[in-house]
Amino acid sequence: MAARPERTAYLDHAATTPVSPEALAAMRPYFSDAYGNPSSLYELAQQSRHALDEARERCARVLGARTGEIVFTSGGTESDNAAVVGAAFALRAKGGHVVTTAIEHHAVLHACDLLESLGFEVTRLPVSRDGLVSVEDVVAAVTERTAVVSVMLANNEIGTIQPVAEIAARVKARAKELGSAIVVHTDAVQGAGYLDLNVNRLGVDMLSLSAHKFHGPKGVGLLYIRRNTPFTPTQVGGAQERDRRAGTENVPAIVGMSVALEAAERERDASVAAVAALRDRLIGAVRERIPDARLNGHPVGRLPNNANFSFPGVEGEPLLLGLDLAGVAASSGSACTAASLEPSHVLLSLGMRADLARASLRLTLGPGNTAEEVDYAAESIVTLVAKLRALSAAPR
Amino acid sequence: MAARPERTAYLDHAATTPVSPEALAAMRPYFSDAYGNPSSLYELAQQSRHALDEARERCARVLGARTGEIVFTSGGTESDNAAVVGAAFALRAKGGHVVTTAIEHHAVLHACDLLESLGFEVTRLPVSRDGLVSVEDVVAAVTERTAVVSVMLANNEIGTIQPVAEIAARVKARAKELGSAIVVHTDAVQGAGYLDLNVNRLGVDMLSLSAHKFHGPKGVGLLYIRRNTPFTPTQVGGAQERDRRAGTENVPAIVGMSVALEAAERERDASVAAVAALRDRLIGAVRERIPDARLNGHPVGRLPNNANFSFPGVEGEPLLLGLDLAGVAASSGSACTAASLEPSHVLLSLGMRADLARASLRLTLGPGNTAEEVDYAAESIVTLVAKLRALSAAPR
Repeated sequence: MAARPERTAYLDHAATTPVSPEALAAMRPYFSDAYGNPSSLYELAQQSRHALDEARERCARVLGARTGEIVFTSGGTESDNAAVVGAAFALRAKGGHVVTTAIEHHAVLHACDLLESLGFEVTRLPVSRDGLVSVEDVVAAVTERTAVVSVMLANNEIGTIQPVAEIAARVKARAKELGSAIVVHTDAVQGAGYLDLNVNRLGVDMLSLSAHKFHGPKGVGLLYIRRNTPFTPTQVGGAQERDRRAGTENVPAIVGMSVALEAAERERDASVAAVAALRDRLIGAVRERIPDARLNGHPVGRLPNNANFSFPGVEGEPLLLGLDLAGVAASSGSACTAASLEPSHVLLSLGMRADLARASLRLTLGPGNTAEEVDYAAESIVTLVAKLRALSAAPR
Repeated sequence: MAARPERTAYLDHAATTPVSPEALAAMRPYFSDAYGNPSSLYELAQQSRHALDEARERCARVLGARTGEIVFTSGGTESDNAAVVGAAFALRAKGGHVVTTAIEHHAVLHACDLLESLGFEVTRLPVSRDGLVSVEDVVAAVTERTAVVSVMLANNEIGTIQPVAEIAARVKARAKELGSAIVVHTDAVQGAGYLDLNVNRLGVDMLSLSAHKFHGPKGVGLLYIRRNTPFTPTQVGGAQERDRRAGTENVPAIVGMSVALEAAERERDASVAAVAALRDRLIGAVRERIPDARLNGHPVGRLPNNANFSFPGVEGEPLLLGLDLAGVAASSGSACTAASLEPSHVLLSLGMRADLARASLRLTLGPGNTAEEVDYAAESIVTLVAKLRALSAAPR
């Protein structure tokens, strides 16, 4: 292994984030001291139960939800799976049709595949070149057999923000016309700390979050389930989480998530301003020196911390390796598919050629990044792209 | 809340255990320092990947398994659900019949209910008064349509140890006769640290563990899946765990589990000797002074750390509350159903009357318990049972 470079920049916050000191401190007592099983009746267990209640209140406050509407899960994947499958199962009597988009996270898309294998019907809507789904397309796809509409709040690769509030309002109106229950879910995993997560302003029935994307711990997430929403639990075998998710509650992780979520919301305005300025600095520096660099995703309606480029003629893999050697952590596509050689389903859905999709680079910032890091990353990218282009232009 | 009593005894290790200092220390670097997503390609992520590989090796060594056969999950419930549903789904073409026992954990039984709601067939075998399933019954229940046989290694309430190795061998022989694949699963959640978990000596295809039962953290478990075992993943949306369980790996928790499992196995002989001596001391003391106390579960073939009593004429709930006030943490039934007023399905399956089942008390020891704690608990139980009996005998 090469020696670590002197300068480093972690620009892969969409993949994961470090646990904040505040969240870690809050978790600490629940590993080995107040370790009781919250389902037990004695005092040691009541300490855990109390911690769980407080964590639920914190999360509910951020979402503008009731505490009884928060279901703790093992992470974003479980939340997305449970939302789509749980609502489809609950409403399968009416037909079990699911409407979603082609650029959802695989946790939604593969859950849809699973449902198809069980006889459910799935509509995957296309998106524009910027990654936007059309509200009209969503409404037009809804039929009386539709059980679930799942549209992500912001895309994990290209950062495009979907008009979820408008979609939810229109779908709910359509459901009313049809006299039929339709559950609206949003995967908000990339939104925490940057977008408004208020479930009433969004108008959604279900919303997924994953703690390790907002400086909480790995292995924990939540699923908001609006009261009276049809839902069949997918993890079964205990009465935890009001019978909606069985299994001993992961108390320290839940406490850590709640503290991190509260902090992400408290610091949201400042974080948005800080990372948007850094992102624009990064995009500006790269575009100025690589004029044919293409910015993927919506030019304006995107997450403030996301920059996704394609560099024609440059493969993503050697670029990432070069950046790693320079101490810059970035990714091509999502972390969940990082080791895959397949071009990203998201980029292909934008109408991008496979070779250009393979030449993509995702940089996702966090509030802890600095202008120096961004400048260093831009400098490293420019140098590497030039070098890789020179290599591929050289006679072989 | 009452002031804490001076003396306390935690005798509910089957519900949960504190994270050991060793496991917690091993987890620490992976929260905020080596926090990379193991699926990413850069060096920070490779530290997590390396930690994950080492953890997998530790777990595989304890089970006598290959590293590729270990799938990390969010805990025992997910492992049990995934085992039963995953194998049944994979083999549904042949009929999808499941054989299990009436006293499995609800994580298995409710997964069976879910399968039934999807058209699968389930046979729930009865057990003897001691909680033993008959090997002959299991073999007789197997047909050419059988996909999964799931029998727990040791019961979480009464501690009875099932003849899993014999069951696995006989079912495998029967499967061979039938020319049919049958997956044998065991829920070994209560066995870690006390029973042999070697998957080859057990002869099982799948085995579930939950870290927080053996001084690892909550929110993490594993499912052993023997190579070539038919398995359809139930949590989907990423290529993690060799495509068998999607979702960002919970690196710190997985590391903590692996260290705790290694320690549990290393100290197993000593733990068994220590807790069996304490358990016998507890049972002896209680029986000597409450002659009609009934010991539930197998008199000999039981977990060395489990004592489960019924006290005729005494309700479980006031007994537990009295013990809590005395500083003794114990349970009635399992933790997952602690808040339920229903009598335990396990005790009812032993042929016990509902009132006696409600009068049960489970005490589960750990290697950290002392003779003083056990004596104190016995004394508290004896005093409380006498008091409660006097109360219920008094004119009202």
